[in-house]
Amino acid sequence: MTTQTAFSTRDAAFVRDFHIMSEFGATEKGGVERQAASVPDGQQRQWLKGLLEARGFTVRFDRAGNQWGLYEAVPGAPFVVVGSHMDSQPTAGRYDGAYGVLAAAHAAFRLVQQWAAAGPGGQPRFNIAVVNWFNEEGSRFKPSMMGSSVYTGKLELDTALATTDAAGVSVREALDAIDCRGNYDGPEAAYCAEIHIEQGRSMEREGVTIGLVNSNWAANKYEFVVHGEQAHTGSTVIADRKDALLGASMMVVAARELADTFPGVLHTSVGQLNVYPNSPVVVPSRVSLLLDLRSADESVLAEADTLLHERIAGIERLANVTVERNHAHSWPVTPYQPEGVELAAKVAADLGLANKQVMTLAGHDSTNMKDLVPTVMLFVPSVDGISHNEHEYTTDEDIVAGLTMLTEVVNRLCNGVLED
Amino acid sequence: MTTQTAFSTRDAAFVRDFHIMSEFGATEKGGVERQAASVPDGQQRQWLKGLLEARGFTVRFDRAGNQWGLYEAVPGAPFVVVGSHMDSQPTAGRYDGAYGVLAAAHAAFRLVQQWAAAGPGGQPRFNIAVVNWFNEEGSRFKPSMMGSSVYTGKLELDTALATTDAAGVSVREALDAIDCRGNYDGPEAAYCAEIHIEQGRSMEREGVTIGLVNSNWAANKYEFVVHGEQAHTGSTVIADRKDALLGASMMVVAARELADTFPGVLHTSVGQLNVYPNSPVVVPSRVSLLLDLRSADESVLAEADTLLHERIAGIERLANVTVERNHAHSWPVTPYQPEGVELAAKVAADLGLANKQVMTLAGHDSTNMKDLVPTVMLFVPSVDGISHNEHEYTTDEDIVAGLTMLTEVVNRLCNGVLED
Repeated sequence: MTTQTAFSTRDAAFVRDFHIMSEFGATEKGGVERQAASVPDGQQRQWLKGLLEARGFTVRFDRAGNQWGLYEAVPGAPFVVVGSHMDSQPTAGRYDGAYGVLAAAHAAFRLVQQWAAAGPGGQPRFNIAVVNWFNEEGSRFKPSMMGSSVYTGKLELDTALATTDAAGVSVREALDAIDCRGNYDGPEAAYCAEIHIEQGRSMEREGVTIGLVNSNWAANKYEFVVHGEQAHTGSTVIADRKDALLGASMMVVAARELADTFPGVLHTSVGQLNVYPNSPVVVPSRVSLLLDLRSADESVLAEADTLLHERIAGIERLANVTVERNHAHSWPVTPYQPEGVELAAKVAADLGLANKQVMTLAGHDSTNMKDLVPTVMLFVPSVDGISHNEHEYTTDEDIVAGLTMLTEVVNRLCNGVLED
Repeated sequence: MTTQTAFSTRDAAFVRDFHIMSEFGATEKGGVERQAASVPDGQQRQWLKGLLEARGFTVRFDRAGNQWGLYEAVPGAPFVVVGSHMDSQPTAGRYDGAYGVLAAAHAAFRLVQQWAAAGPGGQPRFNIAVVNWFNEEGSRFKPSMMGSSVYTGKLELDTALATTDAAGVSVREALDAIDCRGNYDGPEAAYCAEIHIEQGRSMEREGVTIGLVNSNWAANKYEFVVHGEQAHTGSTVIADRKDALLGASMMVVAARELADTFPGVLHTSVGQLNVYPNSPVVVPSRVSLLLDLRSADESVLAEADTLLHERIAGIERLANVTVERNHAHSWPVTPYQPEGVELAAKVAADLGLANKQVMTLAGHDSTNMKDLVPTVMLFVPSVDGISHNEHEYTTDEDIVAGLTMLTEVVNRLCNGVLED
């Protein structure tokens, strides 16, 4: 899938590093499996450490396992934080997150080189920090965006460290096992920038190279537990059954029907579902599931949410079960700072890169960071919109164009373009 | 839940042993958790060994982990095999299986005592073997009825021993860990008898103490694998999704709708369902599920099966998935030997126990044994029909009546009543 374009030496070096990086946790089908604090995640973090240190960056791990590559051009000044995450979903693609960390590193390398060449008169106003956030994906440890949530004060450090995976291993133990739990608190941030693949088709469809992310979709995420009664699958008459899996299955179907009721403007899904006792001959007594509703339109989301809860009441009667709403987590449509979107639009225009404003449907570490400091979020296209899949793909031209774009955005942020 | 009846000394001893036995793997809610070759299963087997040896029985474990308590009154003669299983489902009841093993042991104790008292002229024609079959439940290791399937030649020993549980532990390793894998092949059987709880309401409703099992329901059991595509649950537009969990959920709902189409004469269920990658933010790419259809009427079963497969073809289109039928296992309505049913009816009448003929909806080790030798299968009532549940219950009067019934059936089988 490599392309024929002749890249500059430094662009070719970036593409080469991207392919080296993709070997960590590589799967046979061309993807990666690099869940948070797994062995390949730990190995990749050591590799990134070497890459940063070779360029004169100081590498530190903070208390929540975030990896920082710090370059202090202006002693004592705050930092422009640039990065994403290198952990992945199970059997995932090579681009999600990891591209953003490597692009941040290479952008920083270019700027540091530029500052060194410029001499004392050409120094920036802010320092630069490359970040590899811990556990953005949330597949092994919930919630997702864990590292950036701790850094931005949205999640208690102790709560994060005590979180366990399905095997009972805590974040604290898992981070210690890969030697990535430090005693650092992280740098003081002034601004933030992140680049990521779109994970949708809209940019590809419109032939756009750079997405200027202006806000996120709103979301309501629920953990439901459906309660039934254990019974023999063979001998128990149907009328006596309280089948938790039947109730849960009706909820999965209802969620999709809701999305079909609001075509194109509501996304619903159930990604995780666990059955107890999960034995061939026992009617399940307990099923837990994670159901989420997302929309760019908060009124659609509210209406869909009401319909969902009405449907659940009906399902309780039909399946003879009770449905408990165990955990709920919602976020509204919140904008990225308009001055950041404007800056990114100006940079793209200056570089001659086709661009448009987009919303992000997925959550990103930058959606946490934008609540702390002005944050610029950029997208590059995803071929066929495929993501969280081994066949996730973005062309080398696009990852290089994204790097060029990110470098110039961070350059201007470091120079204090948004200070006035 | 103990009753006020004054039992004879030997009946009281049986009830006492039943309560002692129920302590192995006891749960807080009054049930047991004693999956095949678990620590409590192993401990209970040692306890049963002691009980049998104290009464002069020789205890041996065969190559498939079945536990045999042998009493040879007539050297060289074949055996009447009496027993059931002591393993349980997760968080199950105290009666399912274990009652049948303990009743078999106490029935054998009574007969041995009777033969000893009778002197040389009162010896039986056949010997007696108490059996505790390995892994009847199939919750930890599939298939269910594993030990009796090996003994009756329906399952290869090596296949059984190589079967692994969800943690990757093989039957061979699990049996070795509880020291229950022997080098015995099992005794030569002449007849078989088993007593079990009904696991349904029909006997309780009709005020019947003894069920004379005349045949089993037919069943078609399938393992289906639904194949979709991993995608991001947030950003992937609904039209692009191939959601394996949506397809699987539609199958669970379709199975129940089928049962509702044939009210009272068709039982359907999905007891086990596993999702991959089962991450909060990934559209599932693979869901496996065990779906079964059961009926006493083979034509109903055939019609329901056709409808099911039509529904699956529709679900493949609606959910944009493919459904693979990975494994299928069927059995017809097969009768227990009529002469055995007749014998049991005569015994019940002689003892003055209210009885009726019933079918078994669940599978039992005796459904394997009846294909090898003439087999008598007996039921006692289940309060409210509750089974595979910690609240499973049968009154002490009924378990004692069942023991009396079983003892006399086995007595007559040992005396060769069906030989003529």
